[in-house]
Amino acid sequence: MKVSFQGEPGAYSEQAVFDYFGDVETIPCESFDAMFDSVVSGKSDLALAPIENSLAGSIHQNYDLLLRHNLHIVGEYFLRVRHCLIAMPGVKKEDIKKAISHPQALGQCAAYLRNHGIKTEQVYDTAGSVKMLKESGARDVAAIASKRAAELYEMQILEEGIEDNAENYTRFLAVGREPVVPELEAKTSIVFTLKNQPGALFKALSVFALRDIDLTKIESRPLQGKPWEYLFYIDFIGSTSDSVSKRALDHLREYALILRVLGSYPRFRG
Amino acid sequence: MKVSFQGEPGAYSEQAVFDYFGDVETIPCESFDAMFDSVVSGKSDLALAPIENSLAGSIHQNYDLLLRHNLHIVGEYFLRVRHCLIAMPGVKKEDIKKAISHPQALGQCAAYLRNHGIKTEQVYDTAGSVKMLKESGARDVAAIASKRAAELYEMQILEEGIEDNAENYTRFLAVGREPVVPELEAKTSIVFTLKNQPGALFKALSVFALRDIDLTKIESRPLQGKPWEYLFYIDFIGSTSDSVSKRALDHLREYALILRVLGSYPRFRG
Repeated sequence: MKVSFQGEPGAYSEQAVFDYFGDVETIPCESFDAMFDSVVSGKSDLALAPIENSLAGSIHQNYDLLLRHNLHIVGEYFLRVRHCLIAMPGVKKEDIKKAISHPQALGQCAAYLRNHGIKTEQVYDTAGSVKMLKESGARDVAAIASKRAAELYEMQILEEGIEDNAENYTRFLAVGREPVVPELEAKTSIVFTLKNQPGALFKALSVFALRDIDLTKIESRPLQGKPWEYLFYIDFIGSTSDSVSKRALDHLREYALILRVLGSYPRFRG
Repeated sequence: MKVSFQGEPGAYSEQAVFDYFGDVETIPCESFDAMFDSVVSGKSDLALAPIENSLAGSIHQNYDLLLRHNLHIVGEYFLRVRHCLIAMPGVKKEDIKKAISHPQALGQCAAYLRNHGIKTEQVYDTAGSVKMLKESGARDVAAIASKRAAELYEMQILEEGIEDNAENYTRFLAVGREPVVPELEAKTSIVFTLKNQPGALFKALSVFALRDIDLTKIESRPLQGKPWEYLFYIDFIGSTSDSVSKRALDHLREYALILRVLGSYPRFRG
């Protein structure tokens, strides 16, 4: 099986692919667009797209790409993001004067770096920072990236889990060309639009609340060409193959101008 | 009066300041953080913060900064974003081989640039691209930026309104140290958290729906330290000084764990 991810080899997204799918072939893609295209064209079987981080929030580009492509969500995975301080082999922690990484990773380790008197420099990618460090051979610089990136480039991990906030998770969605029918507890993701009138969203949410269906996420995105109207993305516990969820979606169709099911898939239980 | 904005002189945000406030002193700030700080410290009287673009969506950093600071929203403004193709004086449109600007501006003019066979190069800022072009003196390069940036740097506008989608608006919020009491039609912005239980958001929206209060925006942001729990930001038509809105907010306090009014302010009518 071939699974696409966005980023360089050793990216957190690639680690998520191995954690979730086991021993598969990974296909690195330059952009989220290219990652979706690789599934559409058949170059890969699935893509694993980050959709939300517990600290930074939703990754809107992937919400937009789910809408634009006629693909199906077939699974979800939560990756605990553990940043590693990575250096050339033989370097000691007290030698490190500067850390290089993606701005978000540097930001998530800001207190640690400050406490150790380590300055920062931004680069475009976490795994890329390890590659750059190896090429430069610098012995007073560390990269911040995943454990996998350190192993891939045969570098030394000086410390693991240097993020300031341990509650750092990224939720990924597995996306493929064919839908699945989940057997155990399921989640369903939908996207819809409503008439722009008072109480519209309230009515839409009633179809779930009146049936005690648990919503796990609501996200709004601008509707292109209609300023200040929105697409709503909702995740709920349930599957399009169970009768309660089916009735809720039929009920929602009475209010929604557009309604699309992006997929029902097994709920991830860590 | 002194009004802070984020960006270089000539930025779209600065144009919004002049459109909305008239002839005031503008204070350019490097970051959104610095812009909020300048109001807190008294270096400026107000800040004008972009909160949402009709094509790109919400600017989450400013949602987070509204929460972090004890400031008040005192007004809103909608800027129609009109991109200009800007060149050195005397240059003709057919001489232009390359356009430089912020990636978002280049993206919003992609079809126009493709149709005219103009290549692109990304720089960090729209107004900054005009400054760079003037310094280089290049006669086969154009910058894409606001009309004001062209005037500020005494450059030539080759064409105005080259964006592919005319429905390109940015909503700005004016933020100050003291609340206002709006006299005409008002909007109110609030932020709240809910217990993580089925139907929680439905109940929260009921306080508005049951009183026919019109919601204009709902946005969710991650609650730091509590993965997959959310802060909800809602804008509605009404003012904390009218009795219906007051009762709705009292009702919402029955469900909300935290509820803060970010401000009531005059609704913008273009």
